[in-house]
Amino acid sequence: MAEPRELLVHELRDILYAEKKLEQVLPKLVEEATDSGLRAGFEEHLEETREHIENLQQAFEALGETARGQTCPGIDGITTEHEEFVEKHNATPEVLDLFLIGAGSRVEHYEIAAYTGMVRLAESLGEDVCIDLLTENLEDERAALAKLEAAARRLGTARAPAGAR
Amino acid sequence: MAEPRELLVHELRDILYAEKKLEQVLPKLVEEATDSGLRAGFEEHLEETREHIENLQQAFEALGETARGQTCPGIDGITTEHEEFVEKHNATPEVLDLFLIGAGSRVEHYEIAAYTGMVRLAESLGEDVCIDLLTENLEDERAALAKLEAAARRLGTARAPAGAR
Repeated sequence: MAEPRELLVHELRDILYAEKKLEQVLPKLVEEATDSGLRAGFEEHLEETREHIENLQQAFEALGETARGQTCPGIDGITTEHEEFVEKHNATPEVLDLFLIGAGSRVEHYEIAAYTGMVRLAESLGEDVCIDLLTENLEDERAALAKLEAAARRLGTARAPAGAR
Repeated sequence: MAEPRELLVHELRDILYAEKKLEQVLPKLVEEATDSGLRAGFEEHLEETREHIENLQQAFEALGETARGQTCPGIDGITTEHEEFVEKHNATPEVLDLFLIGAGSRVEHYEIAAYTGMVRLAESLGEDVCIDLLTENLEDERAALAKLEAAARRLGTARAPAGAR
């Protein structure tokens, strides 16, 4: 691989696979979450994830490349962590909500890393259509992470020792 | 699992495994990177990673728990992405440096997600020693990510089309 453009296409395939995987996983998180704000956040992010997939398809088109995903071991690993925890630990609703915030944050952080790098690659290549589409996805991921962090603060403060509030 | 404290211990085991894995992987990144600033950043972060492992061992001690890691599929997936790319794509030094910035950013983001959640859990439990140790690690990960992003800007700008500079 000699061209940064090929790396951008490689990264697009990686994140297309990741977004499609999340489209499958987010409905499980909606079911598992007890806190209504957390559940609503996952539901909303499922809708956004579908838009992200469309944006990615347009980004491939703008580059004249076929839109296809390729296995992304990073997101597979993060979603495996979630599956294993749910299967093994028989967590109470309170603990499961806290765990799901952590799992969701790991996903959002993974995507923020990926989109940040892709936006920068697209910038260095002057690929303006890609820059806009990928920046839109990046901003949604950042907003989704901020919502998860707000939920964490809310749920954490509710049970913090009085002195720590 | 009924107690947030058990979740904190679970998360500590996950990240101890991750840090130990990175202690093995970072020397490869040092070898593979061509840009001297990027290489120095990976070297410095290897030293920090060893300090993070010590901090984690102290955090286990503060909680009265045995310091042991447990397989973290998230970090395994992210490091597998790196291995597969290097094996399959025969990248030029320029493309490999750009890829390594992306791989390193994914690792830092994973750790930021993990430590942010653990600091919040420790806060809700009033575990002050853990809060300090984990915050120290979190701040190092944030600083390491900022350095990777600076390297990306530097390398990206060097090849951006004139109009995009």
